[in-house]
Amino acid sequence: MGVILVHIEGYDPAPWIDELKRQAPDLDARARPDVDDPAAVEVAITWRLPFGVYRTFPNLRLIQSMAAGVDHILADPERPPRVPVARVVDPWMARSMVHHVTLAVLRWHRRMDWLEGRRATASWPTGIVFDADAVRVGVLGLGNLGQAVARAMQDLGFEAAGWSRSPKAIDGLVCHHGPDGLRDLAAWSSVLVCLLPLTAETAGILNAGLFALMPEGSLLVNVGRGGHLVEDDLTAALDSGRLAAAALDVFGTEPLPAGHRFWGDNRIYLTPHIASEINPVTATRAFVENIRRVRAGEAPVGLIDPAKGY
Amino acid sequence: MGVILVHIEGYDPAPWIDELKRQAPDLDARARPDVDDPAAVEVAITWRLPFGVYRTFPNLRLIQSMAAGVDHILADPERPPRVPVARVVDPWMARSMVHHVTLAVLRWHRRMDWLEGRRATASWPTGIVFDADAVRVGVLGLGNLGQAVARAMQDLGFEAAGWSRSPKAIDGLVCHHGPDGLRDLAAWSSVLVCLLPLTAETAGILNAGLFALMPEGSLLVNVGRGGHLVEDDLTAALDSGRLAAAALDVFGTEPLPAGHRFWGDNRIYLTPHIASEINPVTATRAFVENIRRVRAGEAPVGLIDPAKGY
Ligand SMILES: NC(=O)c1ccc[n+]([C@@H]2O[C@H](COP(=O)([O-])OP(=O)(O)OC[C@H]3O[C@@H](n4cnc5c(N)ncnc54)[C@H](OP(=O)(O)O)[C@@H]3O)[C@@H](O)[C@H]2O)c1
Ligand SMILES: NC(=O)c1ccc[n+]([C@@H]2O[C@H](COP(=O)([O-])OP(=O)(O)OC[C@H]3O[C@@H](n4cnc5c(N)ncnc54)[C@H](OP(=O)(O)O)[C@@H]3O)[C@@H](O)[C@H]2O)c1
Repeated sequence: MGVILVHIEGYDPAPWIDELKRQAPDLDARARPDVDDPAAVEVAITWRLPFGVYRTFPNLRLIQSMAAGVDHILADPERPPRVPVARVVDPWMARSMVHHVTLAVLRWHRRMDWLEGRRATASWPTGIVFDADAVRVGVLGLGNLGQAVARAMQDLGFEAAGWSRSPKAIDGLVCHHGPDGLRDLAAWSSVLVCLLPLTAETAGILNAGLFALMPEGSLLVNVGRGGHLVEDDLTAALDSGRLAAAALDVFGTEPLPAGHRFWGDNRIYLTPHIASEINPVTATRAFVENIRRVRAGEAPVGLIDPAKGY
Repeated sequence: MGVILVHIEGYDPAPWIDELKRQAPDLDARARPDVDDPAAVEVAITWRLPFGVYRTFPNLRLIQSMAAGVDHILADPERPPRVPVARVVDPWMARSMVHHVTLAVLRWHRRMDWLEGRRATASWPTGIVFDADAVRVGVLGLGNLGQAVARAMQDLGFEAAGWSRSPKAIDGLVCHHGPDGLRDLAAWSSVLVCLLPLTAETAGILNAGLFALMPEGSLLVNVGRGGHLVEDDLTAALDSGRLAAAALDVFGTEPLPAGHRFWGDNRIYLTPHIASEINPVTATRAFVENIRRVRAGEAPVGLIDPAKGY
C-alpha cells in the first residue's frame, strides 16, 4: 500500500488529507514535503502539480484530478503516458454549476445591473417587460455539467439546445455536433454557455467569428476554461453591442491579475473560478472509491482519454 | 352585449383594448373616458380603479383584476358586493415569479454583491464555498405562485417548505398552516418568501416577531404586497444582522417615493413591482374566456371569496 499524494497548487492540502483519513483511516495520505521516497507514491490527487513531477513517481498507478477538468494534468509534457488519469464526476458540482449559470442568465435576462444602476436616480421607468420566450440558451459541451445546465434552463421555462463532439440524442433537447452544428447553435442562441474541456480543438473557440453569428445583445457565459476565450474579441463584441454582457469565471491567468481591464468592465460579471465548488466530503468519497478500484485492478470512475484530451 | 371597461391606474389602457379587440373583435372594449353610459358597463377589467367607481355601474356582472391579487378591488368600501371578482391565474406569471425569486435567492446565496464589491480591490479571497445544503426556503402562501416557487427551489437542489391558511398535502413538500405552523417555518427557514394575498389577517405579517425566529444572516423576499412588511422592523433586522439581505418588489407606496431610505440601502434588492409581469396576450386570453363565462352564466376562472379576502 503506497502513499497517496495530495497537492493543490497554492493551497494547503491539510484539510483534504484529514478528510481522506477520516473516511479511510488506512490510507497513507501526505502532502508533497512529507513524501521522502518518490517510489512510494501510488496515487496522486492533484490540482496543478508542477510540470515534471509526475514522472518522478515510478510506481504511480493513478493521477486523480481534483477538478472536473484534466487540462492541468495533460498539459505536463513529461506526464508518464501509461498512468491512467481520472477527473471528478460529482452531482454536488453539477448543482453548484447550475446555480452559477442560472444566476448569470437571470441577472442578464431580468436586467438586474441596469435596474440597480437606476437606484441613483430614485426612480424607475415604466413598462419593463422580460420576454422569457425569447431566451434561447445554447450549451457548448453536453457532458455531466452541460447536460445539467441545459436541463435546468428548460426547467426555468427557457429554450435550450446543446453542442458536443460526437452526435447525441438527449430526450427533449436539440443536440448539435461538429463545426456546422456550432455555427447553427450560435446563430440561434441569445445565451452561449461554454462547458467544454480545454483541448487543442476547443482552445480559443469563443472568438469574434462565433460572436458575429449571435443575435445582438446576447450573453456569453464562460465556465469552461480561460483558454476557451479570446479576450480581445470579447471586448470588441461588448463594444459593438453584439454581446450585452459576459459572465466569466475562468481566465487565462488565475487569479485574474490586478491590472487586468476586466476588473473595471462592468459589462462583465466576474467570479474567481467558483462556478462549481468541489465538496471535500463528496469528492473525497470519489477519491477513496477510485483508490480502491485501481488497487483492485478495476477502471477508475471518470477515466479520461488522453488522445481526446478529456 | 355591454361595454368592457379597461382601466389601469396611471397607464394608458389602449394596448390592452387593442389586444382584446384582436382576440375578440366583437367585444366593445373601452377606456373610462369613452364610457358615456355607466349602465352599459358589463365587465370591468382593472388595476386600481379609483374607489367609488364600481358602484356607478348598475349592470356590472364581473370585476376582473388585471393582477393575481384583488386587494386593490376589495379595498373599495363601496364595491357592490353582489358582483363576482376574479383574479388572473396564468402560467406565464408563475414563470416570471419563479425567475424573480430564483435571482434573489441565488444573488444572496452566492454572495454576488459582496463579490462585486471586491472588484474595487482587484483581488479575491480564497476558500469561497457556497453551502447549498444549508439553504432552506420557506414559502408563505401555497397558491398558484407559492407552489411554483417552492417546486423551483427544490429543482435547484434547495430544501423548501411552505405555509398556507388551510392544511395542505403537497407531494414532496413539508406544508405548515396556522399560527404555530408559521413560527415553525420561520425558525427553520434561512430564506422566507412572501407570496400571500394582502388581507386583514396577513397585513404586517413580515415583522420583528417573525424575523426574530429566523436564523442569523437570513434572506427575506417580499413579492406579496407592500402592506405585508413592517418597514421599520426590516431595517432593524438588517441592522442587527438577523437578516443579511431583503429583496423587495412591492411597497406600501408605489412607485417607491424618491426620498425613501430603501433607495440608498444596498442590503435591499429593489425592483419596481415586476416580479411577475402580466403578459398581454395570455392574460387577455383569460379575460376573453371569463367574459364568455359570465355571459353564459358560468363561474369565471380565478373567482375569489371576498369573505376570505383572496
Ligand atoms: N468553472 C468551474 O468551476 C468548472 C468546474 C468544473 C468543470 N469546469 C469545466 O467544465 C468542463 C466540462 O465538464 P464536464 O464534467 O461536463 O465534462 P465532460 O462530462 O467530459 O463533458 C465534456 C463535453 O464537451 C464535449 N466536447 C469535448 N470536446 C469537444 C469538441 N472539440 N467539440 C465539441 N464538443 C466537445 C464532449 O463531447 P462528447 O460528449 O461528444 O464527448 C462532452 O459533451 C470541464 O472540462 C472544465 O473545463 C469548470
Ligand atoms: N409582485 C408581483 O409582481 C406579484 C404578482 C402576482 C401576485 N403577487 C402576490 O402574490 C399573491 C399570491 O398569488 P397567488 O396567485 O399564488 O394566490 P393564491 O393562489 O390565491 O394563493 C394564496 C395563498 O396564500 C394563502 N393564504 C391566504 N391567507 C392566508 C393566511 N391568513 N394565512 C396563511 N396563508 C394564507 C392561501 O392559503 P390557502 O391555500 O389555505 O387558501 C394560498 O395558499 C397575490 O395575492 C399577490 O399579493 C405579486
